[in-house]
Amino acid sequence: MSTKNWKDLAAAKKAHQQTTIPRQWIIANPPPKDQLDVSALPESYGVLSAKDVEITNSQVDVLLAKLADGTWSAMDVTTAFSKRAIIAHQLTNCLTEIFIERALERAARLDEYFKKTGKTMGPLHGLPISLKDQINIKGVESTMGYVSWIGRYTSKNSVLADILESLGAVLYVKTNIPQTLMWPETFNNIFGRTTNPYNRSLTSGGSSGGEGALVALKGSPLGVGSDIGGSVRIPSAFCGIYGLRPSYNRIPYAGCVNSMQGQDSLPSVLGPMSNSLAGIKTFVRAVVGAQPWLKDPLAVRKPWSEDEYALVEHGGGKGLCFAVMWDDGIIRPHPPVIRGLEETKTALRLAGHRVIDWKPLKHDEIVNVVDDIWGAGAAQDYQTDTAISGEPVIGTMLPTPETPGRDETPTFRPLSKGVSAYELWQVQKKRRELRQEYLDHWLGTEKVTGTGRPVDAIICPVAPFVAPPHGMNKTADYTIVWNGLDYSSLVIPVSKVDQALDARKPRHTFYNDADKANYELYDPITYKNAPISVQLVGKTLEEEAVIAMSEIVDKALKAHSPVVRSQL
Amino acid sequence: MSTKNWKDLAAAKKAHQQTTIPRQWIIANPPPKDQLDVSALPESYGVLSAKDVEITNSQVDVLLAKLADGTWSAMDVTTAFSKRAIIAHQLTNCLTEIFIERALERAARLDEYFKKTGKTMGPLHGLPISLKDQINIKGVESTMGYVSWIGRYTSKNSVLADILESLGAVLYVKTNIPQTLMWPETFNNIFGRTTNPYNRSLTSGGSSGGEGALVALKGSPLGVGSDIGGSVRIPSAFCGIYGLRPSYNRIPYAGCVNSMQGQDSLPSVLGPMSNSLAGIKTFVRAVVGAQPWLKDPLAVRKPWSEDEYALVEHGGGKGLCFAVMWDDGIIRPHPPVIRGLEETKTALRLAGHRVIDWKPLKHDEIVNVVDDIWGAGAAQDYQTDTAISGEPVIGTMLPTPETPGRDETPTFRPLSKGVSAYELWQVQKKRRELRQEYLDHWLGTEKVTGTGRPVDAIICPVAPFVAPPHGMNKTADYTIVWNGLDYSSLVIPVSKVDQALDARKPRHTFYNDADKANYELYDPITYKNAPISVQLVGKTLEEEAVIAMSEIVDKALKAHSPVVRSQL
Repeated sequence: MSTKNWKDLAAAKKAHQQTTIPRQWIIANPPPKDQLDVSALPESYGVLSAKDVEITNSQVDVLLAKLADGTWSAMDVTTAFSKRAIIAHQLTNCLTEIFIERALERAARLDEYFKKTGKTMGPLHGLPISLKDQINIKGVESTMGYVSWIGRYTSKNSVLADILESLGAVLYVKTNIPQTLMWPETFNNIFGRTTNPYNRSLTSGGSSGGEGALVALKGSPLGVGSDIGGSVRIPSAFCGIYGLRPSYNRIPYAGCVNSMQGQDSLPSVLGPMSNSLAGIKTFVRAVVGAQPWLKDPLAVRKPWSEDEYALVEHGGGKGLCFAVMWDDGIIRPHPPVIRGLEETKTALRLAGHRVIDWKPLKHDEIVNVVDDIWGAGAAQDYQTDTAISGEPVIGTMLPTPETPGRDETPTFRPLSKGVSAYELWQVQKKRRELRQEYLDHWLGTEKVTGTGRPVDAIICPVAPFVAPPHGMNKTADYTIVWNGLDYSSLVIPVSKVDQALDARKPRHTFYNDADKANYELYDPITYKNAPISVQLVGKTLEEEAVIAMSEIVDKALKAHSPVVRSQL
Repeated sequence: MSTKNWKDLAAAKKAHQQTTIPRQWIIANPPPKDQLDVSALPESYGVLSAKDVEITNSQVDVLLAKLADGTWSAMDVTTAFSKRAIIAHQLTNCLTEIFIERALERAARLDEYFKKTGKTMGPLHGLPISLKDQINIKGVESTMGYVSWIGRYTSKNSVLADILESLGAVLYVKTNIPQTLMWPETFNNIFGRTTNPYNRSLTSGGSSGGEGALVALKGSPLGVGSDIGGSVRIPSAFCGIYGLRPSYNRIPYAGCVNSMQGQDSLPSVLGPMSNSLAGIKTFVRAVVGAQPWLKDPLAVRKPWSEDEYALVEHGGGKGLCFAVMWDDGIIRPHPPVIRGLEETKTALRLAGHRVIDWKPLKHDEIVNVVDDIWGAGAAQDYQTDTAISGEPVIGTMLPTPETPGRDETPTFRPLSKGVSAYELWQVQKKRRELRQEYLDHWLGTEKVTGTGRPVDAIICPVAPFVAPPHGMNKTADYTIVWNGLDYSSLVIPVSKVDQALDARKPRHTFYNDADKANYELYDPITYKNAPISVQLVGKTLEEEAVIAMSEIVDKALKAHSPVVRSQL
């Protein structure tokens, strides 16, 4: 393949995508490019019927109940979300593969089964679920944004797609990603850039940025992303939705494509993204309940535990002690992020819980170890998958120059030629020591919580900023650290940037140059409307407890935020 | 350090070991070197009282019951096993660190507690447990047979040692290993060679060969070994005891020393070795019950499941379908190994279970992948830990030459300079594909079992031979394959080599040169008295079911073997 050819191939693929969009759902009068907030637009084009609007504004638990009692058919629900997904795509460029006809056929079969038997196919009967591009679906392409992968139609479902279908779900679209998946924004040479629905001059985050934008616009009630350093949590936070990073291999990954395959030490995980915690819980309980370890040799044989969800190891959920990490000592968060933590703290206290401060331990060392593990072979991996077509490895996500060159701080593109396996083992040994130190540090909080237990969960920023302008997401340290430790973590939306509440605050000393540069980036106009979120962190394989404690935080925020905010 | 010095250091350490042996337990008239079977000798020296004999001949469940009802004191039991361990050491050279005085003090404290409160300290109250040298105990050296590690007194218990002590166990000796742990025999430059108690011209196996010999001689009711390629199972089989290889991180490994630390992809695991299945079950249930995930960041949060032990996923244990793998297609097992499988098959059929044949799938590829993962950095690792003292990396376990040189087939000593991290990832990717294929292959047996389930467990050789002469253990493929797949597996003793039953059988075609060479090694005189065992293999994290199914096999063998054998 010549270097000329890759652009043609990418353009042809993108043009083909356009043909998969049902024509009757194309918006005649799309908003001008400088219209930044498009979050309220989907319902304004007349494409969605009143019933479509009602359906797409419903949470997963409500949808499943109404599908199960026959109020709505699978066809109703699939049609409504398909329409809204297509609108969302036209507003934010969030989709890759679109296969709505196939989804509608599937919905029809589900409805037939329901009519015939009076029963649902399973706990996800009729629920449309969107999947990140890398999650293989039989007969659908998985390019992952690599030009050289165009035409890779997969012959077999991934284990997750198989399980979701066996539980009654309807698959209908796949969502956009950055080339390599190793970047916390979403842009690639085939499908281009996904933008943030609350402010299109900002990134939707990444690498599951297509899911973030789609779910935020309610083009999907439940999406699945993947997270190796924050790729579920960052777009969830930037787009104002809920997103769970489960522990390694809790959710089956077998049969998906990825970059850096064979990198076993710090694996990517699949996790749900939804506009409700009901969506998150439904997904984990249903998928784990399908015994994925019988299909994926790496999936952990650990059934869903109702005891752990009832927080039996956390005092039954009464009088919990949370610890807030305000700052990791590397880059101090911007004002809206701090406000998110403050509101959460106050809401939790009003709800009867204790909140103390969390002392971060060696976050810089943990992040360095993670970067070194990825960097051990990443450059060779990316080069291998791009060299075939001649497309360049993308080195910046800045919108200009038009042909992206290399960023001045290539945090997400290791230049290293790699290291030896023996050297990699030394880094991995160091990492194990850090994991032990961190666990001991956490257990040591038993002395200060006043509950007789160590801190129940950590609450911290998802990033030191809310969604930044395109090309400006320079760090994922606030999420990477928990991947390095394999802690289960969940993103909870709190608020949105508000000029009156989130003014720039004077600051004169800085941790380092990156901290100073980050400080200088902030002003409340640039980040207008961007969602504010927090991250709740539990221990390894504690998904049930993390979901339950997130419900407590979410409920406290909903109950007390108006009061809290009136006092700010 | 000069190269001359390492021998002096090793000799001084070995001489120091002699001073830790209580003098009154030294055997005045040890058996001559050419007395091969020493299995019956421990009770013959007058060191053990009648009560000591009764205690040391008791299984773990009986010991714990009599300790808990006050029939025997912790001091009684610790004294008895300490004496017998010291005798076993004089017969087979099975120990490294000996700290009996400390153990007796601990036993006295346990007795005091019991007298004062009428209660035990925990489910392992007063039970002596022996540990492989690498398992750190506070204040005790861990040399792992490396001269350069002499003097490494550990300041902290490993997590396992901590848990065992918190449950009431008494630690009293550590056991011998091969240098690097990566060899299925037991010899190092400090402590020398451990021999097989049933025939001292044969190896005890390795790397947990000290445990194998000690437990076989009832110098310990329960020992802990580690297994990265068969290191629990091979010595268990060669010494005629039970041994479990649990799945990765089911038993906490944190705080142990090891070679190749940081090699995360195919980790070594800790597992119990005992002269009864009661010992195996007691260990796993007690250790997992102590929630090791709260102390070891890598330990899997999976409580002991009584449902899985009750075989709810295996038809409640009635009418199981086992599959026997007679031969892996690489090296055909010797006649006694085949007899072990035949007796097991017949016993299971008489007990009402189905037995079909297991078709091995790509065992050669799986073993190659495992070897490549270890080999990626092993040579550098071994060189680093020996270079400090100048001791050579041991390259053969043949008893002559006196200073071991390099074996002609250095299967267990990769010569490779190693590979890059990226190349290692490619091997690991291949391995993941093989794990998926194997799981699919297993699940596919549902069509042929007649139970409506896939095969419940595989029964196969532990090695293609029973314990071979020293230096002749040339392959660990029959165990390595299950490490590569992370399948839980348990060794069950069946019989012993018998000249009348285990004659050499003519054979004229061979898979390869190694197969032919192995065939030619066998004659029933050389292997006289060697224990015969089988390996029962379940799926990943299926320890409870594997123990329960092993109980079924063991019971069938005990009930039916006399009948079976009379028909041979």
